[in-house]
Amino acid sequence: MKKQLFRKELAQFQPYVPGKPIEEVKKEYGLTEIEKLASNENQLGPSPLAIEAVRKALDDINLYPESTAVDLKADLAAHLGVKPENLVIGNGGEELLFLIAQTFINEGDEVVVASPSFGIYNTTTSLLGAVVKTVPFKNKTYDFEGFLEAVNENTKLLYICNPNNPTGNIVTEKELDDFLTKLPEDVVVVLDEAYYEYAVVDPDYPNSLKYLESRPNTVILRTFSKASGIAGLRVGYLITSEHIAAEMNKAKLTFNVNRLAQEAARGALKDQQHIARSVELNYKSLDAMKKFFDEEGLDYFESRANFIFIDVKKHSKEVFEALMRKGVIVRPGFFWGWDSWIRVSTGTMAQTEKFISCLKEVLKD
Amino acid sequence: MKKQLFRKELAQFQPYVPGKPIEEVKKEYGLTEIEKLASNENQLGPSPLAIEAVRKALDDINLYPESTAVDLKADLAAHLGVKPENLVIGNGGEELLFLIAQTFINEGDEVVVASPSFGIYNTTTSLLGAVVKTVPFKNKTYDFEGFLEAVNENTKLLYICNPNNPTGNIVTEKELDDFLTKLPEDVVVVLDEAYYEYAVVDPDYPNSLKYLESRPNTVILRTFSKASGIAGLRVGYLITSEHIAAEMNKAKLTFNVNRLAQEAARGALKDQQHIARSVELNYKSLDAMKKFFDEEGLDYFESRANFIFIDVKKHSKEVFEALMRKGVIVRPGFFWGWDSWIRVSTGTMAQTEKFISCLKEVLKD
Repeated sequence: MKKQLFRKELAQFQPYVPGKPIEEVKKEYGLTEIEKLASNENQLGPSPLAIEAVRKALDDINLYPESTAVDLKADLAAHLGVKPENLVIGNGGEELLFLIAQTFINEGDEVVVASPSFGIYNTTTSLLGAVVKTVPFKNKTYDFEGFLEAVNENTKLLYICNPNNPTGNIVTEKELDDFLTKLPEDVVVVLDEAYYEYAVVDPDYPNSLKYLESRPNTVILRTFSKASGIAGLRVGYLITSEHIAAEMNKAKLTFNVNRLAQEAARGALKDQQHIARSVELNYKSLDAMKKFFDEEGLDYFESRANFIFIDVKKHSKEVFEALMRKGVIVRPGFFWGWDSWIRVSTGTMAQTEKFISCLKEVLKD
Repeated sequence: MKKQLFRKELAQFQPYVPGKPIEEVKKEYGLTEIEKLASNENQLGPSPLAIEAVRKALDDINLYPESTAVDLKADLAAHLGVKPENLVIGNGGEELLFLIAQTFINEGDEVVVASPSFGIYNTTTSLLGAVVKTVPFKNKTYDFEGFLEAVNENTKLLYICNPNNPTGNIVTEKELDDFLTKLPEDVVVVLDEAYYEYAVVDPDYPNSLKYLESRPNTVILRTFSKASGIAGLRVGYLITSEHIAAEMNKAKLTFNVNRLAQEAARGALKDQQHIARSVELNYKSLDAMKKFFDEEGLDYFESRANFIFIDVKKHSKEVFEALMRKGVIVRPGFFWGWDSWIRVSTGTMAQTEKFISCLKEVLKD
């Protein structure tokens, strides 16, 4: 028998098909401007303090980055009121999700995720040989009873994306407290709070840092890619018990976070004003969209993130393509098996108006 | 029985102990200047074209990077005379070494490495459950007969670091050709050419790109961290068959290479003059060091990299500490089990002279 060349788990992975570059889409459809509202980027732009911090660090890019991001950890620890030993810094949230899989998963371990939710939970754990159990949404939110039924003695990790991607709705503090008291303590709960800064303005949003004490097998993920506006530089962080952080630091790459990225994150962290402005713009954009959806009678999820998930009552692939022809790129819901839904990122008010008027035309056709 | 919390392979991993920050060393030893010749960084600094490219890209850091590094791949493919489909771009060579493990290793697969060599081959494959077989150097170079004896039907990967880290010596084209004809074709050979630009001036250094045709299960690793001088930005690349590259792209993170890093690498690639100057300085620095070692009767490896490995005839931990007290940081050989050897990076001529005079004093004590 011929030896299997590749890791066996990769056989179930789909080949990567890159999206069309913007310039190509422009040429193909004869467009001069395209608004990309598909990746939940901060359309207010990067924090100016982040840019300034990068400029200052440019002369030293021949030197390896600090492997433990010691300065960034100190700043973050002070900001959050935790110890540097509670933190793990990564090359974006995506690398950290992979690091979580590497730290906990052996072949045959089980993982529980919601659906629809962020697909990277599935791919990172499947690559390590996990069995992924999927619990569909119920009444437009997390089905925690279903979660408890899915958990067994082999369950290693359970993911809660809060606000949830692609739906944008939150799990409240009460719901989360209640669920966690029923969940066995040895199940590691990953709270993906990538959109934290947008959600925390809601008084019902959980203060998850309290679980560091009460439930040590909890890992909180946050990022500089969203409200801080430096997605291009790839910096995310985990907040967890010292015990788990130490094990993750054994598994992580030595030099995973780029030198300029570490400095940019420190600049962005100082720039709470930029975050506040980003959050303000976000809710203005959401309000304008919701007003339109209400007028049109379109169903949507209540969002506490910088995107919103809407039922457009047509196949999302068609709507996606029709919007692209008009110069607006969104994320079609069929990726998640929600065929008539689309996810659109918030933007500047000009982008928001353009999206609304384009969608109006598309829905009329 | 209590459930095992962490991935079982991590139990054999050592906790990460960060090195002392330079500022702390300065304070501790009352030093004003420290020369760090421990990480094989380019002491000529980053390519100015790389810095310029970063500056131009700063306004867009709120946007995610190109997930496939399409522009950098196009530039590199043209430069190397390969197809973009032969390339995989990574967050430094280290991430790519990990990606290699993720792409090929299942638990129980075997891996063959030399000793002394780059330790990341062992950690990345061990984490995925590989059994690592180590073949010690013989006559101060790779023992290819020993490699062939270590290979069996379970061997998935075999690593050749060329020039070898920490010794700096090369495997010649003739040696490599000869070895590869004897090696089973289904063993994937990783040729780590991180120091390629320094080595290629030696006419005996292999033209490894020819193996893309003749031996598809070959993966060549190169990097922008060394001669191009952008270690802080983390960009490395693999050159391999389209079949292997496609599988790696399935396993890799979506957004692994930072937006500024992609642009910096494109700038650095254009700056072949900076590379030529770096290589020239490297051999001047090496010549000055070798002259001193010859005068002192110290044994060393003939280096084609930007570092050199020397037998200082004392325990390397002592020499490392004595040099640090004088303001020069090197890498002690005991890490690799070569207790009386040290690895020192080349530097500017001022750094080189400082290292030589400090080592002279240390060896006299």
